[in-house]
Amino acid sequence: MTTKQPNPQTANNVNPAEALRTLCEKSHPAVAAEALSALDVAAAWDILRDVTPSIRTEIFSHLTPSLQVEMVGTLPRADMARLLSDMPPDDRADLFRRLPEESRDAVLPALAEAEREDIRRLTDYEDGTSGAVMTSEYATLPPDLTVTDAIERLREIAPDKETIYYSYVVDDERKLLGFVSLKDLILARRDATIRDIMHEDVIFARASDDQEDAARLIQKYDLIALPIVNEDGALVGIITHDDAIDIITQEHTEDMRRFMAIAGSAGTEGYLRTPFWKHVQQRVGWLVGLAALGLVSGLIIHEFEATLTQVIILALYMPMVADTGGNTGSQSATVVVRALALREIAPRDAWRVLLKEFQVSVFLAAVLGCLAWAKVVWLSQDTALPPGITLSNVALVIAAALTGQVVTATLIGALLPLAAARLKLDPAVVASPALTTIVDITGLLIYFFTARWLLGL
Amino acid sequence: MTTKQPNPQTANNVNPAEALRTLCEKSHPAVAAEALSALDVAAAWDILRDVTPSIRTEIFSHLTPSLQVEMVGTLPRADMARLLSDMPPDDRADLFRRLPEESRDAVLPALAEAEREDIRRLTDYEDGTSGAVMTSEYATLPPDLTVTDAIERLREIAPDKETIYYSYVVDDERKLLGFVSLKDLILARRDATIRDIMHEDVIFARASDDQEDAARLIQKYDLIALPIVNEDGALVGIITHDDAIDIITQEHTEDMRRFMAIAGSAGTEGYLRTPFWKHVQQRVGWLVGLAALGLVSGLIIHEFEATLTQVIILALYMPMVADTGGNTGSQSATVVVRALALREIAPRDAWRVLLKEFQVSVFLAAVLGCLAWAKVVWLSQDTALPPGITLSNVALVIAAALTGQVVTATLIGALLPLAAARLKLDPAVVASPALTTIVDITGLLIYFFTARWLLGL
Repeated sequence: MTTKQPNPQTANNVNPAEALRTLCEKSHPAVAAEALSALDVAAAWDILRDVTPSIRTEIFSHLTPSLQVEMVGTLPRADMARLLSDMPPDDRADLFRRLPEESRDAVLPALAEAEREDIRRLTDYEDGTSGAVMTSEYATLPPDLTVTDAIERLREIAPDKETIYYSYVVDDERKLLGFVSLKDLILARRDATIRDIMHEDVIFARASDDQEDAARLIQKYDLIALPIVNEDGALVGIITHDDAIDIITQEHTEDMRRFMAIAGSAGTEGYLRTPFWKHVQQRVGWLVGLAALGLVSGLIIHEFEATLTQVIILALYMPMVADTGGNTGSQSATVVVRALALREIAPRDAWRVLLKEFQVSVFLAAVLGCLAWAKVVWLSQDTALPPGITLSNVALVIAAALTGQVVTATLIGALLPLAAARLKLDPAVVASPALTTIVDITGLLIYFFTARWLLGL
Repeated sequence: MTTKQPNPQTANNVNPAEALRTLCEKSHPAVAAEALSALDVAAAWDILRDVTPSIRTEIFSHLTPSLQVEMVGTLPRADMARLLSDMPPDDRADLFRRLPEESRDAVLPALAEAEREDIRRLTDYEDGTSGAVMTSEYATLPPDLTVTDAIERLREIAPDKETIYYSYVVDDERKLLGFVSLKDLILARRDATIRDIMHEDVIFARASDDQEDAARLIQKYDLIALPIVNEDGALVGIITHDDAIDIITQEHTEDMRRFMAIAGSAGTEGYLRTPFWKHVQQRVGWLVGLAALGLVSGLIIHEFEATLTQVIILALYMPMVADTGGNTGSQSATVVVRALALREIAPRDAWRVLLKEFQVSVFLAAVLGCLAWAKVVWLSQDTALPPGITLSNVALVIAAALTGQVVTATLIGALLPLAAARLKLDPAVVASPALTTIVDITGLLIYFFTARWLLGL
């Protein structure tokens, strides 16, 4: 898990800047970008300025978006325009989208008409859609070309295309007719036409589709690239396999953050570069909301204060019942959220899921109820109880309440993500801490009503 | 986000089995596999039996591993051997690994020597390593071939290789010298030799490396395939881009399950096909463990029972302090676990992470402390208090304890995943429910000592 480096020409007698420049020329652009990220902006430009232009652009495209914005901000307008012109269209559109208003207005007139148009088209799509991540550097072929001519054509255009391993066959209106892989071309008879050998059942996505759906298609069908069409069925871009990995990783980060009650997107700066106030901002909203929701629990406890004052032992076991409900509810929510994300289940399976979770919860409730009973009997053997109430009665009440709470919390944990999915929301909006707070409420209600009923309070 | 289907030749007059068979022949094997998964094993074989053998094998390879095992179990030995021989080597090794002992012993002698050897080699590597997921169907080229001859060679071997877009250049001992892409070959002068045009700085992984590290290399360097070498540096296989997506998705699922205290692997059956007892098994262990850990909280509460009996209002706010600590601790753990998984931070950054989390937690603590104070003053305005203790004193105690708990819980939430990573464990072993239970303990201690100290109990 390492890379064979070129012979170290960076031996003695060479200053660090020179060594970095050699690294930029000889190593993979991802490696060079990583090394440059440690420098400040001016020092990074000092190195990059003397690197071959095509390599410079590649390295720049591998920097994190926030660093790109920072670095591009220090350039004169003409240099900024040249850099943008050289970048791959999807990376360029992405950078453009992040530039401050004034930089955008400054650089646009300095770009060629074709690039301006390309940026306009790619930035037109909403963030998170397939259109916003696609690239316009794909290879197309007309259906009537012969295989020999097609290979010759690909030779000519290859340097400008993100991939030539898939070529898309389009008609005069750019309607998608089919695709051929370079492997098909290599294997085919030289005088066959593209129409003869193309695959007509093309898997594609629409530009307005969610980027995650496009990435999942690439995953499902093991594709190197997925064509993206507009509302008229005309080819407007492709999403490549490496973008699909990045999208899936990004969506997973979002899911996990959302599920653990952290707002906003993860950002591209990484943990350490994200400023303190942004970390606070992403967490404080949810925490305040949860504190507000916690008021309901507070009101319920307040309502039953008389009962608790009378039988103090019940107050001592409130946290146990609340925690256990939170744990079982979070487990079922996790399993359901992930199964929905992997498309293993859909909202229409709700009844089957709830039935299964019910079975699981009954078993878990039985085990945890017995443990709770034993815990109360052992821990509170010397606790003073009000007249007429025995320890075994109290233990039974607590165990019964906990049993009811485990079943309820498990079902709520499964139900809420399914409901979110049915409402076309991301199932992970049902954050685990929110779920914990919600099942606290049901738990306390079950607890106090069980106590009143069984102890006759 | 849909596929252009071939013209529906499955109109009237055609029975469902016939329609499915047509689907198998005409659609992407992933689609056919999905359709067949709904059938029982015998019915699925009825359909597959009449499908072109090469397509049949492809469809079979797209079925879930557990269904493959089930289906292969019903075959006579000779058919089983034929199916295994036709499968891609990585899928075949994977299936073989899952077969029951007696099926393996039965089918091995029926296979050709070369395939037996291939299976032995691929199943030799431990589950979760790069060696266990690699395929042996890659293209190699000797360094002295000309470009024309190399393309001709690739034409011949293409049908048997997982990808011909990257070819690996090896010497007589199979030592990896470099690689060429098919794009390089198409662009190169016809009489150049492979040695002239190959890239010598090859990114590779070792067969014993973690599969996730290999997948992250594919992601970082935007590769179509990653070569895998053994301890001697000899090429033994490749991992392709589509495997990388599957590995990353699988690791995401594992991380999320682990973090939410669910044991075992997600399995390949999907949520609904996983039997009830397996769901129970994956959850009950952690829940019982958490209940055991909760005993510590129980003992602490028991220890301070006298204090609670004296000032009952303190018992009423125990759940609030515990919940808030759990929420803030889970947030910081989530952020740190994810940053570690994305390699944004490493264990050596521990001090910087803790400093940042400390800053964040102080701010959060201030906000949540004020809210807690207001909550107590408002909710408990009519609560009876023991002589000498005022409501504003109690509110101050509760707010102070909550403030201390938010800071402590946030730091513990950040520290534990970093410690796990330092011990070479997956940071996600610090499951959020376990963390919640641990910070319950610190929270109760802080709560009771603050109360004793400030109220002079």
